[in-house]
Amino acid sequence: MTRSIETLTGSQLGDIDPDQALRDREEYKYLLDKLQEKMLQIQLAYYTQGRRAVIVLEGTDCAGKGGIIRRLTQPLDVRGVQVCPIGAPSAEEHRQHYLQRLWRRLPSSGSIAIFDRSWYGRVLVERIEGYCSQSAWQRAYAEINDFERMLHDDGVPVVKLLPVITKVEQMRRFEERLRNPRKQWKITSEDIRNWHRWDDYQLAFQEMLDKTSTECAPWHLIPGNRKWFARIEALKVVTEMLAQGVDISVPLMDQKLMKQAIEMLHRELKGS
Amino acid sequence: MTRSIETLTGSQLGDIDPDQALRDREEYKYLLDKLQEKMLQIQLAYYTQGRRAVIVLEGTDCAGKGGIIRRLTQPLDVRGVQVCPIGAPSAEEHRQHYLQRLWRRLPSSGSIAIFDRSWYGRVLVERIEGYCSQSAWQRAYAEINDFERMLHDDGVPVVKLLPVITKVEQMRRFEERLRNPRKQWKITSEDIRNWHRWDDYQLAFQEMLDKTSTECAPWHLIPGNRKWFARIEALKVVTEMLAQGVDISVPLMDQKLMKQAIEMLHRELKGS
Repeated sequence: MTRSIETLTGSQLGDIDPDQALRDREEYKYLLDKLQEKMLQIQLAYYTQGRRAVIVLEGTDCAGKGGIIRRLTQPLDVRGVQVCPIGAPSAEEHRQHYLQRLWRRLPSSGSIAIFDRSWYGRVLVERIEGYCSQSAWQRAYAEINDFERMLHDDGVPVVKLLPVITKVEQMRRFEERLRNPRKQWKITSEDIRNWHRWDDYQLAFQEMLDKTSTECAPWHLIPGNRKWFARIEALKVVTEMLAQGVDISVPLMDQKLMKQAIEMLHRELKGS
Repeated sequence: MTRSIETLTGSQLGDIDPDQALRDREEYKYLLDKLQEKMLQIQLAYYTQGRRAVIVLEGTDCAGKGGIIRRLTQPLDVRGVQVCPIGAPSAEEHRQHYLQRLWRRLPSSGSIAIFDRSWYGRVLVERIEGYCSQSAWQRAYAEINDFERMLHDDGVPVVKLLPVITKVEQMRRFEERLRNPRKQWKITSEDIRNWHRWDDYQLAFQEMLDKTSTECAPWHLIPGNRKWFARIEALKVVTEMLAQGVDISVPLMDQKLMKQAIEMLHRELKGS
């Protein structure tokens, strides 16, 4: 039975200013360094303490999800982080419950999973394209809230980011992708179909915010028109949320153990 | 039935000079930029042409595999590359054929899979620690050759890299990890146990080279004592091998289609 989960109010797409910007490249570099250092420290803590975390990125095409993910993962060790791009389901996945392929990708002990799109596909692309029935996507809001609360109750923070760009900015980025041979591959015919769907997506995003921004797993809107600002903002939110209730002070090795290990190492070297 | 696969001769651990170095940081930066640009171009080609590739990294602890993987993947899009760290098998994987968990991780169309350790665990750690019977790891050389030839025959290049460091350099890096709080987490008790296994590993690496450096999938020894040199060398090998027989010239979009798309985009903007 689905229990009712209290959703937060006040996350309105229209309330944020997507044009917020940093002062300059200097400020960007400075903040990026500082936040990436903190991100590494957090990963250390999660890894050594066997914790798990889930980060979810949703957003329109060209919203800058990829760039944010790159800055999040750059400082980390591949052993402690996994990026899960969630595209169209495979033929086999298509025959399963929509949460099934996502359960399979949840992180193991010591690992942080970053979902590039996620279970929210149910109430976004699947809703808009009619890939599932209306009753199915309407039911999904509560199912997703339950799912995320289960994770939360198991000690797994679920950090949800929604970079928000304007339609004009999206079109600007599409044009850039079209004109830049290095970026053309990122455009699919589905993207082009989506251009006509802007309003449908805005509606679906707003309903998603209204129904799934919960105490356990609130949505974080990221002003997205300026890429530097968006990346810094995303890193701020993620580092702040993941550090909550976790001792992220660097886990110093026992000093005696360390000395012993170094002595052993030196003996090993002399012997060879 | 295992067919005999001709192995190459001449890959001797002792033949390379692990101390080879670049001139300076300038040279490193210059070459890194150039090679990463090429790597992105290759990924573009693999993605758009639906090709698959496998890159394998083996090596002693501290050999620099992680650093190499980071430089290989930095320029790429997460949708077209997957890093597969292969550690100790899970309880379930332990009950399966050793190749089973690796088959599951082979890349799909358009994707490049990078294995941070691999099926070679069978003839390295499993051999040395006695995790499998002697007949099992001895049988594995031919099984692995067959496996890699199957991939090769299916159009999947298998690029195998072995960064080689000296024992003195390994001990130096261990000490650095021990003393640096940011790196201590990378040391496990298994690593410390391995310090006594240096000679066993050298023997196992050499036998691996002798028996699995095939025409289809030769091993590439990477001088590893100097990290910059090793990374550049690895990128050179990977870009060269992946580009063989593949048209990596940037796939320009059909110009007429592009114009149409941009016009549609502008109409879309005006209408909104």
